[in-house]
Amino acid sequence: MTPEQEVRLTSLSHGAGCACKLGPDDLKQVLGLVRGLGGSPDPDLIVGLDTSDDAAVYRVRPDLALVLTTDFFTPIVDDPYDWGRIAATNALSDVYAMGAAPLLALNLVAWPREGLPFELLARVLDGGADVARDAGAVIAGGHSIDDAEPKYGLAVLGTVHPDAVWTNAGAQPGDALVLTKPIGLGVISTAIKRDAAPASVVDEAVRIMTTLNAGARDAAAELGGDVHAATDVTGFGLLGHLRELAVASGVTVELDATAVPVIDGVRDLLAAGMVAGGTQRNHAFVSDDVDWGDLPEHEQLLLADAQTSGGLILSVDHDRAAALVGALRAQGVRATTVIGRARERGGDLVSVL
Amino acid sequence: MTPEQEVRLTSLSHGAGCACKLGPDDLKQVLGLVRGLGGSPDPDLIVGLDTSDDAAVYRVRPDLALVLTTDFFTPIVDDPYDWGRIAATNALSDVYAMGAAPLLALNLVAWPREGLPFELLARVLDGGADVARDAGAVIAGGHSIDDAEPKYGLAVLGTVHPDAVWTNAGAQPGDALVLTKPIGLGVISTAIKRDAAPASVVDEAVRIMTTLNAGARDAAAELGGDVHAATDVTGFGLLGHLRELAVASGVTVELDATAVPVIDGVRDLLAAGMVAGGTQRNHAFVSDDVDWGDLPEHEQLLLADAQTSGGLILSVDHDRAAALVGALRAQGVRATTVIGRARERGGDLVSVL
Repeated sequence: MTPEQEVRLTSLSHGAGCACKLGPDDLKQVLGLVRGLGGSPDPDLIVGLDTSDDAAVYRVRPDLALVLTTDFFTPIVDDPYDWGRIAATNALSDVYAMGAAPLLALNLVAWPREGLPFELLARVLDGGADVARDAGAVIAGGHSIDDAEPKYGLAVLGTVHPDAVWTNAGAQPGDALVLTKPIGLGVISTAIKRDAAPASVVDEAVRIMTTLNAGARDAAAELGGDVHAATDVTGFGLLGHLRELAVASGVTVELDATAVPVIDGVRDLLAAGMVAGGTQRNHAFVSDDVDWGDLPEHEQLLLADAQTSGGLILSVDHDRAAALVGALRAQGVRATTVIGRARERGGDLVSVL
Repeated sequence: MTPEQEVRLTSLSHGAGCACKLGPDDLKQVLGLVRGLGGSPDPDLIVGLDTSDDAAVYRVRPDLALVLTTDFFTPIVDDPYDWGRIAATNALSDVYAMGAAPLLALNLVAWPREGLPFELLARVLDGGADVARDAGAVIAGGHSIDDAEPKYGLAVLGTVHPDAVWTNAGAQPGDALVLTKPIGLGVISTAIKRDAAPASVVDEAVRIMTTLNAGARDAAAELGGDVHAATDVTGFGLLGHLRELAVASGVTVELDATAVPVIDGVRDLLAAGMVAGGTQRNHAFVSDDVDWGDLPEHEQLLLADAQTSGGLILSVDHDRAAALVGALRAQGVRATTVIGRARERGGDLVSVL
């Protein structure tokens, strides 16, 4: 028996993947208690704490901005190599969401030195290194601590021209909103943890979670200034990240629930009760700001489902939406579709149609 | 009773501060098992994984290199604000150890959302933000997860001219080795955790651990190319980091044990058995490569003591050692002293005199 077979890694996670993040309500509470934020604004800090964006962006030269981000989490699948690939793909996603290219990364490791063989950790690091290499980035070190619950992720540094930075604050009324990966990854992760996920569903989830958002970024970059805003879909769920985009951009988002791509098999698992705690917290948090229309609660939970390594949301000039979807599909971004639009702020932050 | 008084934070740590890091022997084992390292060397990667250095350094322009590092750990003191300050000072130290200036940082947070009040986390973040501000860096976001054992630290991005990067690989035979903070912080941390540290000793340890290595870096930078190598002293202990410098630089280090500054009160605590598990692991790891002479074991353990937010080791041209010590003391770096020298490689990696 190999070390991989002895341990079900997800049995060591108390919350799978991005669902182990502190929730949006928690963060709002903590940030409200912090004294030290604010201070004199730095004109070169293009993206900081203000807009709940995916990464920090700082201009160091007129033609060079640096993107800094970090993400790490507990085992989301049982295979250590796949876990490493997923965690790295997810961490790199924040760089792509800002329109940037990754350059350098550091491993972030928490590992039970007495409880889990180092062979498993090496497979996790192999997965991270392979993904970083595919992304054109170098993993050049890291930090590791002894910890009862294993965790893995990356700190990533990327570069972008300051004029080409995407944020979640630029969406304009009339924009079409395009999503580049299907949702339901949190439902599947929960089912994996409970040993209730069909193998074919797991395989598809791993394929999606290890797909870099590099292709989506490259395709969208072809449209230049017609892409007005971007973010990626992770722990706060599709609705949580749409809500942040609505807040940061000063718009209301209209979401066409029937247009949102959902991974095959997810609705069955959802009906069987596979809902992560993080998803419940997401749902409770966004509900104040969402007009659900007559959407049933299980479909609401799906839209709030905590994703790990989800796709990009791209806010694009309405007239260019078809061109963007075409460019994305040409890059192999299969699930791409228009899921809604931005309009002048009015009523709730998000309106589900 | 305030939230601060209800919880002894260090009672939640299984290993205090940098002593919770995976040991050097662990890392060697893991890195030996990883498949994905190596690959084609990138000429712009000035410092990568090869030399166990403190941070990664990448040249993006002929006159601009970026320094990326990360560090986080469990509570090392019971006051949350002090813990935040210490963790941030420690994380920033890696940037100073490369000769660089910090620019941007992200919070890394693991927090028991049900078990510890968010008020405490806010005080931790306040401490980190205050230190970052003193260092001239902006904290512009972060990542936070729900975790049974609290952890805090930073990912830090710094900048430096590519020609002015210090590494641990540049020490030359004949160099004097200068240390800028006294040791014994691991012994004190262990005593704090066991509620056995006198208040005056704790205060002094907190003062030392919250002293940025910025002044030491600035003073040493005045000597330009006469500073040949640098590193900071953290979890692997003074001897562990001297050993890494010896390996990376291809020299043998002669350490004058009697010259090493030790914090007042530490030897009493050591005699009372206050030795961290990480220190024991450090001692076991370095012993193969160290000629201890007739140094008693408790003094050996002190030299292997796992530091948190320790000082810099600076390897400087012998004729300039006095000038360096003078410049450091002029910057207020009080404990500065020459602790040994580098010589041609021969015999053990480190020889204790």
